Amino acid sequence: MTAECPSADVPAVQEVHAAAERIGPWIHRTPVFTSRTLDEFSGASLFFKCENLQRTGAFKFRGASNAVLCLDRDGAARGVVTHSSGNHAAGVALAARLRRIPAHVVMPANANPVKRAAVAGYGASVHTCEPTMQARRSCVEQIIAKTGATLIHPYDDRNVIAGQGTATLELLEQVDGLDTIVAPIGGGGMLSGACVVASSRAEPLRLIGAQPAGADDAARSLAAGRIIVIDNPSTIADGLRAPICERTFALLQRNAAAVIPVTEAQIIDAMRMVWERLKLIIEPSSAVTLAAVLREPDRFAGCRVGLILTGGNADIDNLPWQQSR
Amino acid sequence: MTAECPSADVPAVQEVHAAAERIGPWIHRTPVFTSRTLDEFSGASLFFKCENLQRTGAFKFRGASNAVLCLDRDGAARGVVTHSSGNHAAGVALAARLRRIPAHVVMPANANPVKRAAVAGYGASVHTCEPTMQARRSCVEQIIAKTGATLIHPYDDRNVIAGQGTATLELLEQVDGLDTIVAPIGGGGMLSGACVVASSRAEPLRLIGAQPAGADDAARSLAAGRIIVIDNPSTIADGLRAPICERTFALLQRNAAAVIPVTEAQIIDAMRMVWERLKLIIEPSSAVTLAAVLREPDRFAGCRVGLILTGGNADIDNLPWQQSR
Repeated sequence: MTAECPSADVPAVQEVHAAAERIGPWIHRTPVFTSRTLDEFSGASLFFKCENLQRTGAFKFRGASNAVLCLDRDGAARGVVTHSSGNHAAGVALAARLRRIPAHVVMPANANPVKRAAVAGYGASVHTCEPTMQARRSCVEQIIAKTGATLIHPYDDRNVIAGQGTATLELLEQVDGLDTIVAPIGGGGMLSGACVVASSRAEPLRLIGAQPAGADDAARSLAAGRIIVIDNPSTIADGLRAPICERTFALLQRNAAAVIPVTEAQIIDAMRMVWERLKLIIEPSSAVTLAAVLREPDRFAGCRVGLILTGGNADIDNLPWQQSR
Repeated sequence: MTAECPSADVPAVQEVHAAAERIGPWIHRTPVFTSRTLDEFSGASLFFKCENLQRTGAFKFRGASNAVLCLDRDGAARGVVTHSSGNHAAGVALAARLRRIPAHVVMPANANPVKRAAVAGYGASVHTCEPTMQARRSCVEQIIAKTGATLIHPYDDRNVIAGQGTATLELLEQVDGLDTIVAPIGGGGMLSGACVVASSRAEPLRLIGAQPAGADDAARSLAAGRIIVIDNPSTIADGLRAPICERTFALLQRNAAAVIPVTEAQIIDAMRMVWERLKLIIEPSSAVTLAAVLREPDRFAGCRVGLILTGGNADIDNLPWQQSR
């Protein structure tokens, strides 16, 4: 898959606008936070889009809602299924509950019991499988064969990407004159959505992905011009271990998105800064954006930068600075 | 001091309105957060006034700003002084910096070095003394004798109380139809300010203080009809160990404020709930309000309740649930 790939099935900006209207009654229009201290420290004007305050505690609810609402009536009645141990599972579960349709979530046996309880709390049927990708897929296939449920992929899905793009759309409405957006990259759904929005604007909008150095497949793939797979990605940012896919890679390439890798120590320091200065709980995956800005300040000096704080589901019983110091 | 005391030097509601105008350019108009989950859990509609997002991370900046701005030019030029190891010190330090006047903060030798650094970071001169109240007062007197600085008391001060009242004024503008305000009580400045605002309204507004059971001098004093002093108050809510004074006690009495004492375990559980559900960092002193609502749900069922989240300066290296579980 290359930049020229004409067949990548990616959403148009109209689909992001349609998604915003469709999911509007379900989602929170999350606030934008600023901090004089962090502005002084970074030399830029930073605008934090607080998707940690989104329903379910993460932006994933946007894409999941859009995908669930896009199902036709018959498809919806058969329910939805996904395999995830994290925020996407909660997003799908809540979206299905709101549409009053069945949701099946396949989770590995070693998944965090708190996250399992959260997903079950939203009313989804939780199916436990062996902790391998093969077992997950096989379990999903069995559920589809049995129920006819529709798979909602966490990012390799046109409607999910359109839904994630609504966060960038809102941010641009909320803050005048932004010139840069920095978003974390895991599978690339959030940044891909931002790419779709950016490509339709008259004013240029620079797109930068932030990625843990231990899971930097997007950075390597953009450099190589083809998807590079990393075996066993390792990072505290558990939401960013997923690999990019052809669909999201194509969008990043077409829109000349850049990627800044950051170290684990930089992620932890940035997370701590957000907790102390913004008084907001964010999970490690959200902290990569500030970490990227602080790692390469020359690229942001004097700019008006939107940073997506993607989620707030941190494990407050196991804080990274207590393990590492 | 009793309810009839005519001489208590307390602010009128006009002074709270004047304070709001005076400090308006300096303070943040803090947002109000809500949570469906906490509403369902409590059986009430809860509106959290986020003074943890105030400048310096606490509401204390409101009262300190008002007191600093009320000084005449000569008095201001001589500077201000306070003794505190917490949020009031930071509030006075920042207010003085903004008015470009000297600030002296007397802190005990055993004060938290992080808080000391924060106060120094706002440009105040930090004076270290022995960790006794006698030593603190004596150090303050020496500074006043030497510099002519004005003492800004954290709550036994008409202008400080008027400043704290602006938080309630804002909250009533932001949320329609509130019938109850719940605020923490330490020295009583915040709740006294709420009393002043409530007493001028046509609609009744119930005022409830929340207090740690280990520092429940306000509850005991209201029951006894006179100030009861507690020796060595003990609670994790370090902002609420200060004793009420005649001025704040008179306001609580006149306005029939009630007090709900809460246990340490209830404070910790409520703090955790705010962290997990609202994704907001609050310090233990802020958590007593939700703890009070959850302790006596029958008193709040079906009500529209404003809760003041007074501060966010938690020690994120020492979380109470990690010590106690």
